[in-house]
Amino acid sequence: MSKKPLILVINDDGITAPGIRTLVEVMNSIGDVVVVAPDSPQSGMGHAITINSTLFVEKVKLDDGPQVEYSCSGTPADCVKLAVKQILGRRPDLCVSGINHGSNSSINVIYSGTMSAAIEAGIEGIPAIGFSLLDYNWNADFSATKAYVKTIAENVLKEGLPSGVVLNVNLPNLQKKDIKGIKVCRQARANWEEEFDKRKNPQGRDYFWLTGKFVNLDKGEDTDEWALEHGYVSVVPVQFDLTAHHCIQNLNTWDFHD
Amino acid sequence: MSKKPLILVINDDGITAPGIRTLVEVMNSIGDVVVVAPDSPQSGMGHAITINSTLFVEKVKLDDGPQVEYSCSGTPADCVKLAVKQILGRRPDLCVSGINHGSNSSINVIYSGTMSAAIEAGIEGIPAIGFSLLDYNWNADFSATKAYVKTIAENVLKEGLPSGVVLNVNLPNLQKKDIKGIKVCRQARANWEEEFDKRKNPQGRDYFWLTGKFVNLDKGEDTDEWALEHGYVSVVPVQFDLTAHHCIQNLNTWDFHD
Repeated sequence: MSKKPLILVINDDGITAPGIRTLVEVMNSIGDVVVVAPDSPQSGMGHAITINSTLFVEKVKLDDGPQVEYSCSGTPADCVKLAVKQILGRRPDLCVSGINHGSNSSINVIYSGTMSAAIEAGIEGIPAIGFSLLDYNWNADFSATKAYVKTIAENVLKEGLPSGVVLNVNLPNLQKKDIKGIKVCRQARANWEEEFDKRKNPQGRDYFWLTGKFVNLDKGEDTDEWALEHGYVSVVPVQFDLTAHHCIQNLNTWDFHD
Repeated sequence: MSKKPLILVINDDGITAPGIRTLVEVMNSIGDVVVVAPDSPQSGMGHAITINSTLFVEKVKLDDGPQVEYSCSGTPADCVKLAVKQILGRRPDLCVSGINHGSNSSINVIYSGTMSAAIEAGIEGIPAIGFSLLDYNWNADFSATKAYVKTIAENVLKEGLPSGVVLNVNLPNLQKKDIKGIKVCRQARANWEEEFDKRKNPQGRDYFWLTGKFVNLDKGEDTDEWALEHGYVSVVPVQFDLTAHHCIQNLNTWDFHD
């Protein structure tokens, strides 16, 4: 029996995306790899799960690597559930998600299919990491990410992660020589200022495209945005107990009685 | 000009669901109501947003109430973005989401379209509340929820909410006389143990339905699950800074260097 760790690889850009192919290549150098990834892009799916529709899974072979791969009709969170409960014979030692084409820093973590897969694995008690490169292009250059992805994955395998915590790792779109190192950060208080592009369809009916620009008013030097702007790889520990514990005392002073 | 608060009403079960109709009725007694809700059920959509597709919005009239209503082809988070950026002339004073048909307590907050709408409003700086009744049926009886929904909404309008915090309110499926009151809680550490129901389609291809049972091993008496089991309405303050601040110091001791 293999002594190598069992590593589950997921993403949200779809199983053929260059980002997940890079992640598979790196993970093959660390452990036994099983890929369970969406058969089509799922960006912006947040933590969607498929409860009102059926799920299809297909064993596929996409390259000559030693990994085993499954393509799934569902969301990233569905892929984790299917992998853990249906496909893998045992609990994986690590779940890695990505490498996403585009940032999942600061508030983007909320909308991210990549991070929802990592969080779903965390809910299952599996150490998990989401990786994202700050380049939205399909043909993004992932070569500089490999050493950092490997180092961080090996650290998680060695140290483990506290219960209820997963890692959100974002990598700057820089050459390896220009990356300054790794910084542990907090999520910046940044957000999107959306605008809707209003158009008319050929039948004359109004429709909208969501557009917007990212605005960061949080100038803290301990944030993921600061780290990325200054050439660092950002690592944010992310929790899925959303309770704002610091507010409970104040809410208990409210007049809540009929 | 009206001195009444402007209240945005959203849900994830779709604009015709009895839960949102009850919420509209209660909010009409407090303020000027605008409804922007999905044209079809969006349960389990998590914090999905529509970035690769178009959005359609239709002004609709569903009853004789004074509210203004729009039906939208997008997700709950899309509805908030459209309402704030495109439909409403000014920032609403309150955003309420629901009343969801079914629980969004404990880990369900992660998968919840109802709560994603409240969180999206929170990101926009709008005081926001998600309401859910512990009854998944379309014909659930919402009559006992009305007084609690009104009290909590009025408290939020009066007191405001801290920046970065929204409320997750769950209501037990009980007669009014059997509800003991309101409890401010933390999110229980409970989760779903999924099973996949494997079937064959008419062409002989395997497919899966996601099923599962909810398991709560967290016996704390300060949790939402405890409150709901004991006949209370649970109120959990929810934050969208997901940083696990307590882990940063430990992660800084890791061997992160090449």
